[in-house]
Amino acid sequence: MSTPDINAELLKFRDQIDDIDQQMLVLLNKRASLAQSIGHVKAKTDAPVMRPEREAQVLDKLNASNKGPLNSQHINTLFKEIMSTCRSLEREVHVAFLGPLGTYSEQAVWSFFGHCVQVEPVETIEEAFRQLQALQVDFAVVPVENSTEGSIARTLDALVESSAMVCGEVQLAIHHQLLCQTGLLEGIEKICAHPQALAQCRGWLSQYAPHIQQETVGSNGVAAQMASENAKVAAIAGQAARERYGLKAFQEHIQDDAHNTTRFLVLGNQLTGPSGQDKTSLVASVPNQPGAVYKMLEPFNAENVSMTRLESRPARNGRWEYYFFIDLQGHQTEPAVAKALDQLRQNASFLKVLGSYPAAQRT
Amino acid sequence: MSTPDINAELLKFRDQIDDIDQQMLVLLNKRASLAQSIGHVKAKTDAPVMRPEREAQVLDKLNASNKGPLNSQHINTLFKEIMSTCRSLEREVHVAFLGPLGTYSEQAVWSFFGHCVQVEPVETIEEAFRQLQALQVDFAVVPVENSTEGSIARTLDALVESSAMVCGEVQLAIHHQLLCQTGLLEGIEKICAHPQALAQCRGWLSQYAPHIQQETVGSNGVAAQMASENAKVAAIAGQAARERYGLKAFQEHIQDDAHNTTRFLVLGNQLTGPSGQDKTSLVASVPNQPGAVYKMLEPFNAENVSMTRLESRPARNGRWEYYFFIDLQGHQTEPAVAKALDQLRQNASFLKVLGSYPAAQRT
Repeated sequence: MSTPDINAELLKFRDQIDDIDQQMLVLLNKRASLAQSIGHVKAKTDAPVMRPEREAQVLDKLNASNKGPLNSQHINTLFKEIMSTCRSLEREVHVAFLGPLGTYSEQAVWSFFGHCVQVEPVETIEEAFRQLQALQVDFAVVPVENSTEGSIARTLDALVESSAMVCGEVQLAIHHQLLCQTGLLEGIEKICAHPQALAQCRGWLSQYAPHIQQETVGSNGVAAQMASENAKVAAIAGQAARERYGLKAFQEHIQDDAHNTTRFLVLGNQLTGPSGQDKTSLVASVPNQPGAVYKMLEPFNAENVSMTRLESRPARNGRWEYYFFIDLQGHQTEPAVAKALDQLRQNASFLKVLGSYPAAQRT
Repeated sequence: MSTPDINAELLKFRDQIDDIDQQMLVLLNKRASLAQSIGHVKAKTDAPVMRPEREAQVLDKLNASNKGPLNSQHINTLFKEIMSTCRSLEREVHVAFLGPLGTYSEQAVWSFFGHCVQVEPVETIEEAFRQLQALQVDFAVVPVENSTEGSIARTLDALVESSAMVCGEVQLAIHHQLLCQTGLLEGIEKICAHPQALAQCRGWLSQYAPHIQQETVGSNGVAAQMASENAKVAAIAGQAARERYGLKAFQEHIQDDAHNTTRFLVLGNQLTGPSGQDKTSLVASVPNQPGAVYKMLEPFNAENVSMTRLESRPARNGRWEYYFFIDLQGHQTEPAVAKALDQLRQNASFLKVLGSYPAAQRT
């Protein structure tokens, strides 16, 4: 093709794009007007500004009828932003999360709420729960478990005591790097990191750095800072720490599990209705007797309810009792789940349903 | 209205939204297909994957026909994301910027390119230029001036020597806070900050903290870290530093200029065509003679070309010559601008047109 031909062809495509953009502009404004109308109707009741189940259903419907070339990640991201923008015309949503800004936690907030939200970074998981209970924020996002490392104990403990309800979940991929001043392992005498990061890289470390001493520190950021001040120290940390402290990577992606993800819970003060593909999280305790745990789980088996997670944690009452954190497939309003929960309530010495919410992985 | 009435009304609105979303889904996929077709045509030439002037025109057209309730910021943000997503189906755009992640510079990248780009944080302004010249990235984003503090010298110096072309600009609002461990000024003996931040808060400091010693340090992040380690130190820094170092604010928004903004340049290896509302940046040098500067500027006056910025900087050749950094309204292909530039070329001992590009503030 000659250059004029190419230009003519590009022009033709661009005219079509302009036409599409004008149509989308009209639709976006119509959608925004409807969101405003919904806001006015809701103002007459206590209806929440955001319903996670409703947004999950919108995305499910769009993905079901999506013929491409945009893939489901494109669709989800764009419509999260569209919903987020329209929602902000009703009222701005405030979300507390474990700061600082620029971390995986903030990324989890964006990926669940889109960018039209007011983010409120806080310094501890407990403070996120506190702000939510004090109604200072509409939602809080906290990490709850890591695919290789297991649960975040402070979140589990806070869930037992708090009135927060689980409204959603987010899964995020985590990537670690080995960082030092030169990018070379020569002369490195110590590898520092948060204990969880060290554990997540155990296999790599034993293969490539078996003779180097390991030291646990309070956070990967602290480790990176130590490396920046001492040429004999290497740190395990992420890309943000690498850039912030001007370090070089000896190797990227050193976590043992290539698919290492952290799961975050979205907490709110409202019940979330069924979306069609839901999970239910609960915490239960049983008397310290032989067979008690088996008996606790029996109703789920009887009602054919799938358990996706079972995690025990000592109750902090000095009596060697345990809390069991359980995730089920299905919404608590579904008959089988409701029946199993009723049964469990009779067997358990303690039961708290933390919430039912749209599952992050949709099929 | 009774609750059933309200629910019926909400349902009606939601059905309409679902209908709109389906129409948008079809349009978005059509738009993405057209972007792919454009990619195929472009692959036969050396045409760049992103044309800033074209994206500026798309947004201008949409804003001109926008009837609301979405405002022009909503429209620009949503369509930046739509363009960014469609563009990523042609080819991913790589952008270097002054790191670390999570800073104003990264925000400038998102606001110009949308989120579907590959960001490459680098440690120095010079490294951003180097990666661009080595074709390791498609674009680089660097700060060039602050509304209260003036120009960023390293960027100006690099512009003289580099082959980079200015392809766009971004304006971002900057907010400083006074941070310390307690959030109180009692017991504070020293206020630390980057010299530019201290300068930006001079009025506030002389009114509210006139007797406290000031100390300049390498960055606001370093200042915040010092404050986190020493209860007698306060720092001037932004929200990210506040959260990262667990500090409390004595006061937010202490910058003298409520509208303090930083201007960033988007640099590339390509000429940018006219968008309809453009600026042209150039750097010129004149012999060190009486009246030389006046004579240099004469062509712009004669051709009625508006100068939006004039900044001088010593040429680093030891001969006390100066480089003049000039921004003009209009594209270099517009007759008046072209004529003035021709004239200037005859008067100047050195002239380099850095680029013509869409102005960030559109009317």
